[in-house]
Amino acid sequence: MPENSTPQVAGIRLASVRAGIKEWQRNDLLLVEIPPGSSVAATFTRNTFCAAPVTVAKEHLAAGEVRALLVNAGNANAATGERGIADCRACCEAVAEAMDIRAAQVLPFSTGVIGEHLPLQKLIGAIPAAADALEVDGWEDAARTIMTTDTRAKIASRTVRFGDETVSVAGIAKGAGMIQPNMATMLAYVATDAAIRQPLLDELVQEAVGASFNRISVDGDTSTNDACVLIATGSAGHHPADARGEEYQQLKQAIIDVHIELAQAIVRDGEGATKFVTVQVDGAASSEEALRVAFEVGESPLVKTAMYASDPNWGRLVMAVGNAGIEGLDPAQVDIYLDDVQVVEAGGRAAGYTEEAGQAVFGQPEFTVRVALGRGDCREHIWTCDFSHEYVTINAEYRT
Amino acid sequence: MPENSTPQVAGIRLASVRAGIKEWQRNDLLLVEIPPGSSVAATFTRNTFCAAPVTVAKEHLAAGEVRALLVNAGNANAATGERGIADCRACCEAVAEAMDIRAAQVLPFSTGVIGEHLPLQKLIGAIPAAADALEVDGWEDAARTIMTTDTRAKIASRTVRFGDETVSVAGIAKGAGMIQPNMATMLAYVATDAAIRQPLLDELVQEAVGASFNRISVDGDTSTNDACVLIATGSAGHHPADARGEEYQQLKQAIIDVHIELAQAIVRDGEGATKFVTVQVDGAASSEEALRVAFEVGESPLVKTAMYASDPNWGRLVMAVGNAGIEGLDPAQVDIYLDDVQVVEAGGRAAGYTEEAGQAVFGQPEFTVRVALGRGDCREHIWTCDFSHEYVTINAEYRT
Repeated sequence: MPENSTPQVAGIRLASVRAGIKEWQRNDLLLVEIPPGSSVAATFTRNTFCAAPVTVAKEHLAAGEVRALLVNAGNANAATGERGIADCRACCEAVAEAMDIRAAQVLPFSTGVIGEHLPLQKLIGAIPAAADALEVDGWEDAARTIMTTDTRAKIASRTVRFGDETVSVAGIAKGAGMIQPNMATMLAYVATDAAIRQPLLDELVQEAVGASFNRISVDGDTSTNDACVLIATGSAGHHPADARGEEYQQLKQAIIDVHIELAQAIVRDGEGATKFVTVQVDGAASSEEALRVAFEVGESPLVKTAMYASDPNWGRLVMAVGNAGIEGLDPAQVDIYLDDVQVVEAGGRAAGYTEEAGQAVFGQPEFTVRVALGRGDCREHIWTCDFSHEYVTINAEYRT
Repeated sequence: MPENSTPQVAGIRLASVRAGIKEWQRNDLLLVEIPPGSSVAATFTRNTFCAAPVTVAKEHLAAGEVRALLVNAGNANAATGERGIADCRACCEAVAEAMDIRAAQVLPFSTGVIGEHLPLQKLIGAIPAAADALEVDGWEDAARTIMTTDTRAKIASRTVRFGDETVSVAGIAKGAGMIQPNMATMLAYVATDAAIRQPLLDELVQEAVGASFNRISVDGDTSTNDACVLIATGSAGHHPADARGEEYQQLKQAIIDVHIELAQAIVRDGEGATKFVTVQVDGAASSEEALRVAFEVGESPLVKTAMYASDPNWGRLVMAVGNAGIEGLDPAQVDIYLDDVQVVEAGGRAAGYTEEAGQAVFGQPEFTVRVALGRGDCREHIWTCDFSHEYVTINAEYRT
């Protein structure tokens, strides 16, 4: 069940402090403590120019037990070369010293402007205070601390009855942008106090990200710093989850739900977004082609500006479907619906369609565009937002 | 040499008339007469939902000798099903009757809103007057007639000394949009009065489009109606061009130059465009990867909004290069230049770079972004424009 009160996850403590990386009058540095014996799994950006902290975090994750996360906002430490790596390692050393762990047990993350060196002394100077401030109730502060151009903190939680006990799942994320890479984008941290063995957690993080963050489209760019971390502390005292058990299925669903809620919150808070749109494609011959069509529709600037204008310009939808490059797609089999309103029938304007009916759907803050390809039984969906004047303003003026 | 006077191409006559397809106070229907014995080659959109005229034009082109082109603006006759095809055939029949040729000798083209049926009687009613008005001086009127949201007519011409004679090359195009598919986009017609045999012309249209229209990026969408036609009338009286001769190389260059001038004019007139930007990629291991990187940079909304803002946000350039998915690309080998100003050196900020120097380049109406990958000897370039408030305005408000 969804939780409205401040979440807690047994074993996880968080601290938010102000290092003063930017001129912001707010916290910009998050430290997360992970108890011994936890399992930690993660996915990272595929951008070739991955940031220094991504390189170091991958290395530390592979090295063994993770005991802390360090996240700063305001500077991405990306495209910073060898010095960027050295700065990042120095931060991990500072955390290790303050928490009496090893530097290789710290996963570092940065989000902010690309190409500037970290203000290292400010960061290192703030770490001891963070280590002293760790608390189990720190999730909401944490969600605010990692924001960049986000306008709202993103937090989600669930509890699940797991045998006789209750286990918790909580997560925070930051998106800013329509996945805005200059701000070094999408970060998400989800933790549960259930026990999940490492191989199972490695699979689960892939599945959860595939069902959530990999389904949000925005401006089609991928950041140098994207990362998603999933932690299972086992501190709830329950026996380790077993992939075959029904209990695990419930836990897994709760974890995926938290990921989806965070991913949707990123789209809803997309730069300049005024609409939240689900693009669903069914009747596809494969999941891959369904996703290809969904992203082609959801990422087309012409479709997105039409959404912004509340203009049910179905010609642009048809154009986008046609651009997906689906071999052998027969336009005469394609239907398109705006919520329940059929706008395209057999590749042309649906007989009963009226502009008024289409506009009533496109005028809503949330709606679904459904494309039926008439080729098979596969279906997939993504979430996207519209493309507004405000997007141009934010991205044209951010650095100035 | 470029020509400033009104072009003529021996054998080609053009007529522009007003069919009244939209409320426009201007001509919207173009008829082009092609003399017997001409060679005609063309390329068409790859969008699965190609418009009715694309289907019919392909069929007629394959059927044999082409004697006329019919182009209407204001309605794309796309996503119009069987009736769209029938309407299109009816227009070709009307041209055939008015010009005493066969319907299969007419190539039809439409540009405008998708999903509405042609106002057939208006079109057919205007064709006889067009057939009566054909003239060799009709190029400039023709360029204006095919415009949709274009703000400027696009025309280019060259003359070439070909042995003792002068041959002419002239072309017109319409782009509107940042390649704006709702207006059913990019059309281009180029003709020469040199004689070029069909197989050579078929190759030449591919090469010319590859060097021009396939290198312009805009919003990444492809129209349902894109087409480019190349005509060689042979009416200059010269012997047919031979691929091995030096004369043919000169002619070919003139034809390619006309294509490039038209393609660049489309970018310069991109919806809301305020900057004309060349993205050049060198040091690539293959032409394919050079183009991939160039398009990733030239189509990134984040890069394009930074160009609009005259903000040399090189972090976004690095991000875009990293997103091109080039296997094995080493960031430490990547340099980036803004005109002659080096902004990225070995994957990081160049030592001597200053924001002022970068801003001086990005503040210009035209500049080049050059990415050096340090992997090989291949280089490619594309042309793009920035992404402005005006783009959102045009595309959000076009239909209303």
